[in-house]
Amino acid sequence: MRILVCNVNTTESMTDAIAAQARSVAAPGTEIVALTPAFGAESVEGNYESYLAAIAVMETVRAYPEPFDAVIQAGYGEHGREGLQELLDVPVVDITEAAASTAQYLGHRYSVVTTLDRAVPLIEDRLKLAGLTDRCASVRASGMAVLDLERDPDAAVEAIVEEAARAVEDDRAEVICLGCGGMAELTERVKKRTGVPVVDGVAAAVTVAESLVRLGLTTSKVRTYAPPRTKKFVNWPLHAAG
Amino acid sequence: MRILVCNVNTTESMTDAIAAQARSVAAPGTEIVALTPAFGAESVEGNYESYLAAIAVMETVRAYPEPFDAVIQAGYGEHGREGLQELLDVPVVDITEAAASTAQYLGHRYSVVTTLDRAVPLIEDRLKLAGLTDRCASVRASGMAVLDLERDPDAAVEAIVEEAARAVEDDRAEVICLGCGGMAELTERVKKRTGVPVVDGVAAAVTVAESLVRLGLTTSKVRTYAPPRTKKFVNWPLHAAG
Amino acid sequence: MRILVCNVNTTESMTDAIAAQARSVAAPGTEIVALTPAFGAESVEGNYESYLAAIAVMETVRAYPEPFDAVIQAGYGEHGREGLQELLDVPVVDITEAAASTAQYLGHRYSVVTTLDRAVPLIEDRLKLAGLTDRCASVRASGMAVLDLERDPDAAVEAIVEEAARAVEDDRAEVICLGCGGMAELTERVKKRTGVPVVDGVAAAVTVAESLVRLGLTTSKVRTYAPPRTKKFVNWPLHAAG
Amino acid sequence: MRILVCNVNTTESMTDAIAAQARSVAAPGTEIVALTPAFGAESVEGNYESYLAAIAVMETVRAYPEPFDAVIQAGYGEHGREGLQELLDVPVVDITEAAASTAQYLGHRYSVVTTLDRAVPLIEDRLKLAGLTDRCASVRASGMAVLDLERDPDAAVEAIVEEAARAVEDDRAEVICLGCGGMAELTERVKKRTGVPVVDGVAAAVTVAESLVRLGLTTSKVRTYAPPRTKKFVNWPLHAAG
Amino acid sequence: MRILVCNVNTTESMTDAIAAQARSVAAPGTEIVALTPAFGAESVEGNYESYLAAIAVMETVRAYPEPFDAVIQAGYGEHGREGLQELLDVPVVDITEAAASTAQYLGHRYSVVTTLDRAVPLIEDRLKLAGLTDRCASVRASGMAVLDLERDPDAAVEAIVEEAARAVEDDRAEVICLGCGGMAELTERVKKRTGVPVVDGVAAAVTVAESLVRLGLTTSKVRTYAPPRTKKFVNWPLHAAG
Amino acid sequence: MRILVCNVNTTESMTDAIAAQARSVAAPGTEIVALTPAFGAESVEGNYESYLAAIAVMETVRAYPEPFDAVIQAGYGEHGREGLQELLDVPVVDITEAAASTAQYLGHRYSVVTTLDRAVPLIEDRLKLAGLTDRCASVRASGMAVLDLERDPDAAVEAIVEEAARAVEDDRAEVICLGCGGMAELTERVKKRTGVPVVDGVAAAVTVAESLVRLGLTTSKVRTYAPPRTKKFVNWPLHAAG
Repeated sequence: MRILVCNVNTTESMTDAIAAQARSVAAPGTEIVALTPAFGAESVEGNYESYLAAIAVMETVRAYPEPFDAVIQAGYGEHGREGLQELLDVPVVDITEAAASTAQYLGHRYSVVTTLDRAVPLIEDRLKLAGLTDRCASVRASGMAVLDLERDPDAAVEAIVEEAARAVEDDRAEVICLGCGGMAELTERVKKRTGVPVVDGVAAAVTVAESLVRLGLTTSKVRTYAPPRTKKFVNWPLHAAG
Repeated sequence: MRILVCNVNTTESMTDAIAAQARSVAAPGTEIVALTPAFGAESVEGNYESYLAAIAVMETVRAYPEPFDAVIQAGYGEHGREGLQELLDVPVVDITEAAASTAQYLGHRYSVVTTLDRAVPLIEDRLKLAGLTDRCASVRASGMAVLDLERDPDAAVEAIVEEAARAVEDDRAEVICLGCGGMAELTERVKKRTGVPVVDGVAAAVTVAESLVRLGLTTSKVRTYAPPRTKKFVNWPLHAAG
Repeated sequence: MRILVCNVNTTESMTDAIAAQARSVAAPGTEIVALTPAFGAESVEGNYESYLAAIAVMETVRAYPEPFDAVIQAGYGEHGREGLQELLDVPVVDITEAAASTAQYLGHRYSVVTTLDRAVPLIEDRLKLAGLTDRCASVRASGMAVLDLERDPDAAVEAIVEEAARAVEDDRAEVICLGCGGMAELTERVKKRTGVPVVDGVAAAVTVAESLVRLGLTTSKVRTYAPPRTKKFVNWPLHAAG
Repeated sequence: MRILVCNVNTTESMTDAIAAQARSVAAPGTEIVALTPAFGAESVEGNYESYLAAIAVMETVRAYPEPFDAVIQAGYGEHGREGLQELLDVPVVDITEAAASTAQYLGHRYSVVTTLDRAVPLIEDRLKLAGLTDRCASVRASGMAVLDLERDPDAAVEAIVEEAARAVEDDRAEVICLGCGGMAELTERVKKRTGVPVVDGVAAAVTVAESLVRLGLTTSKVRTYAPPRTKKFVNWPLHAAG
Repeated sequence: MRILVCNVNTTESMTDAIAAQARSVAAPGTEIVALTPAFGAESVEGNYESYLAAIAVMETVRAYPEPFDAVIQAGYGEHGREGLQELLDVPVVDITEAAASTAQYLGHRYSVVTTLDRAVPLIEDRLKLAGLTDRCASVRASGMAVLDLERDPDAAVEAIVEEAARAVEDDRAEVICLGCGGMAELTERVKKRTGVPVVDGVAAAVTVAESLVRLGLTTSKVRTYAPPRTKKFVNWPLHAAG
Repeated sequence: MRILVCNVNTTESMTDAIAAQARSVAAPGTEIVALTPAFGAESVEGNYESYLAAIAVMETVRAYPEPFDAVIQAGYGEHGREGLQELLDVPVVDITEAAASTAQYLGHRYSVVTTLDRAVPLIEDRLKLAGLTDRCASVRASGMAVLDLERDPDAAVEAIVEEAARAVEDDRAEVICLGCGGMAELTERVKKRTGVPVVDGVAAAVTVAESLVRLGLTTSKVRTYAPPRTKKFVNWPLHAAG
């Protein structure tokens, strides 16, 4: 099967990191196609950038010329998953939700450790809409910006481990979700330091997407995610608007 | 003061209707500037169109050349309000939230009556994020598409009144919110038929925006709605992407 | 339009302060009539006093001889708003709810900073009934009694600022509501010190009341706030009981 | 031990009925003292009357000249319990809460069947504040006014049984609480007709009060229900206001 | 009346302590029969032991040869109460729920102080299912194992008092529930040290059971707790499986 | 990898059906070992039988002599998953939770259609503890007993389809979970009739278990699911109790 994994930001090196993480857990026979959005911010760290990424991801996936079996939106706490579900028949998996759902199988409560403080409310809101907050102990920020994760992974690990430890001790989390698409390769290091299971959203999402495909399940089309109605667009899509 | 009221769809006649409704309740000295998004769908009735509208509203408001004191996003159950709050210092008011907040002053519980069935989950999600569901008795669909409201207002009133009556009797609502930017002129007719207060979101939002401005209140910038960080964008904004 | 603003306690100087605060934000053409309850405690800081105030406010408003367009109950976390809604057709606005509703337009979460520790559960209960707790980060007590606010405003500001800062940093509030009718004039000083928007309940309530009146909205009479049924009273009202 | 059972309305025959119901379940050695409020409505069916009853009950209990061990407020869905808790050291039991707490021992979910439609939101609000809504299947109105229960008990039983049956079948209730102080003697008849346990609030409250006294438990005085602070009252108490 | 009080673990000395605590509050005429489960762990401190205890309690109660009027399951945060309700017509009272329900009459919020950290989620889950979490301020662990309570009661009191004090000050609890069947005799000592009411689950449950019996109330049999359907069992009951 | 799939009842033909369903979706290289509990009821349809099954499943899994990588508890709405998690290091997946988690990827809300009315509260409780109720539209009973599913699958399909259709239309579900281990082979037939995705718990659980194993994730052992402490057992395990 072919799974599209779409980065939310336009930094190619992050797309590469996401692709590598996805491939490392993909089943034999699963082809991972990693996409970088056709437009948008180099890193997504706020609502404006996230909304722009939502549209960019939709248009980029829509423009993909080959058939595919599932799509993963590889941004933590980002907007847009509902739009993809509307446009596509194949399953759509958001890494925020995949991480949280997976964590819930492993412990009584989970926490998310993310990048900047300003990302926390976005993640909280996504979990609230996904109905995954009852067992969320906390969403904590490490204070590291998205691109800092690439620039200084050692400092990132330190900051993340510190917040993860507080989540386990103070917030009573029993599982940690790494709340950033770019944190993929840090998983093992954090796990060793904290002693609790650590879930990476991209990896979790790959197995969820594969599972849905194998089960023959597709997005329900009876109401919320029914295909868009036919209508006129002004100055859109992008290429027509130039 | 000057308040921008931005339609979410690209149908000018709906912008005109919204503008008229806004002006009918604006205080003396309030200038209502109605904007039509620079791009997007003729009517917004689903997640893809709504996400696109979110970005279109942000770009359109950002491109507005004159100073202004507040912005109203005139789409019911639509995405994007958080992005506007991030981009602007002045208050941003979503009509879904303004209607619900206003309704809560008038009765123990309120219901929303909207257009199509598929809009219901979007409105429910917006109310959930806004923390306004505890006193929401129901969100009900009249089955009328957005553009049908213009084409056949009599049928629209019939369908809406029927759902409003069910909300009052079956769901125990005591106030009705009209859940569509284009329903503005129907308010009085529905009120007469149902006997309960009827809140129009555009009208409510105008008074909320005026209130916030007069109180000298602006969006908090300490965390969620802090200004976007400086960063590079690829193929954006639109004019650079042509 | 004429808005009655009814203090909940019998200290005239507090009525004056509330009146001044209300007038400072009222629109041109709005007449603010400030009332002191005909009976009750000099300051309301607990359930017994609050229940007594509830009745005192109702009887005082009912005894007001002139027509009016809206009523504001100017006590933070106090009982009685539902009774006023039952007795009157015009809108009734509670300052606890007006402050919280207003704060929700300005940030992701808000906190209330109030007077004594014992007032906290009353405010929490009022917010719970009003359906406004989802985005309430915390209700915090400054430890200042109501009448201390008049006697030593400098110490009050210090105590309030300290709690407000904790609310922003520890509880992740992005907006502060000043939880006491007598805190009106402290708003600006607290705002300068904390850097987040500060909402005063009286001021917020004035704009809400004006908005409801201008929108032509009145309390729903179909169920919860239907007029009292005709029946016999024993030893009441007060003047008949002497 | 001596338990005061205070009616919320001023109809003596209802006080007598409540007293009889209380005595029928009281343990040997428990003295039931039934009180009628010194002032207020002949029947309490709305917020104004309920707030007035709250104060009347407090003043009436406070004026009781002998020692007592517990107080029961015998009104369903009424205001005031928190005030009594503040004024007294002995336990205070509200019949709404006693019925619901008792019902929760007997089935997975319970419903309340009460008098008029307008009483429903009051009961819902009391249960919400008491933290007893999670297992409440519904609050239903029989359409009978309080005084109708005395006048035409047969019709009352019919109306109540019909709503109780709907609660069991449609709302999935497994226990019924009779939501009115005056419904005490109807318990057995309803139980026979519906086949599920039926809880009368007055009876339940008597056993709760006795239990608390026997366990030596009294109201916590550390915060919410600390004794009122010493302060000046204007035109109150009643006898001084004549 | 005769009330069975069934310990959840197989340590006879704890059954004796529970029996003594139950008898100290039982009404004249109430016979307390204390049972030790026929099989299971010497102390129950986790899910496996608790599930085993659930079955052991059911089989032990079922094997009791004499008639009885109510059953108390004397384990804090343990599984099994629903099974007993299914097997029996008489009321079944769980001490976790009896303590919490009782505490709710005494203060605005309550906390539970229990033994080991690992017991906390079990208690939280039991309270969640019982619909008793809204007013639960916290569940805190003292770090003492169940059997340590017998071995070193002084150290236990110290540890418990420390957590109780934190619950009152940091979590704003106004009542403390002692979250362990073996803590019965510590109640008075903790109460003296903390100044707030302290509820022991066994004592509370005895009065609840007596109350239900005196009110003539039994478990609802219409749905959740209907008697088991007739069916074949393999290798069970125990004696047949040897 | 080897996955144990443990039936909760002792009917071998149902174990066979579960095994077939599991194998039909298992990845190449996954060995499905289906177990029948060593003791318990021929079908599990209530709390007593479910608690007994909980222990039977734990003992049966514990007695399995070979290594394995994950365990699936194949009973809908049954007790015991937490105990297995405590006893084992490998992932434990409950089919109730796997079905609901999977359904949440496919639609805005899901419903469960199960066997008997009395199973509904058990499923509701399991979903509540799992934090999966926010997006649960309803749990509905088809009125078919577990063993009827084998005896008369055509009638079962009819009954299930009828409830599924009501869930989609009246409760606004967009996905259906088949709430019974024995319903596995009915999935396709129901899907054809209702038009929405239908999730079978056993199939979903197999892919979840495989995913967790492939991700190298195991149950968190820091608190709730820490291994049982060493202690003495009386008359247990079973063979020692004969």
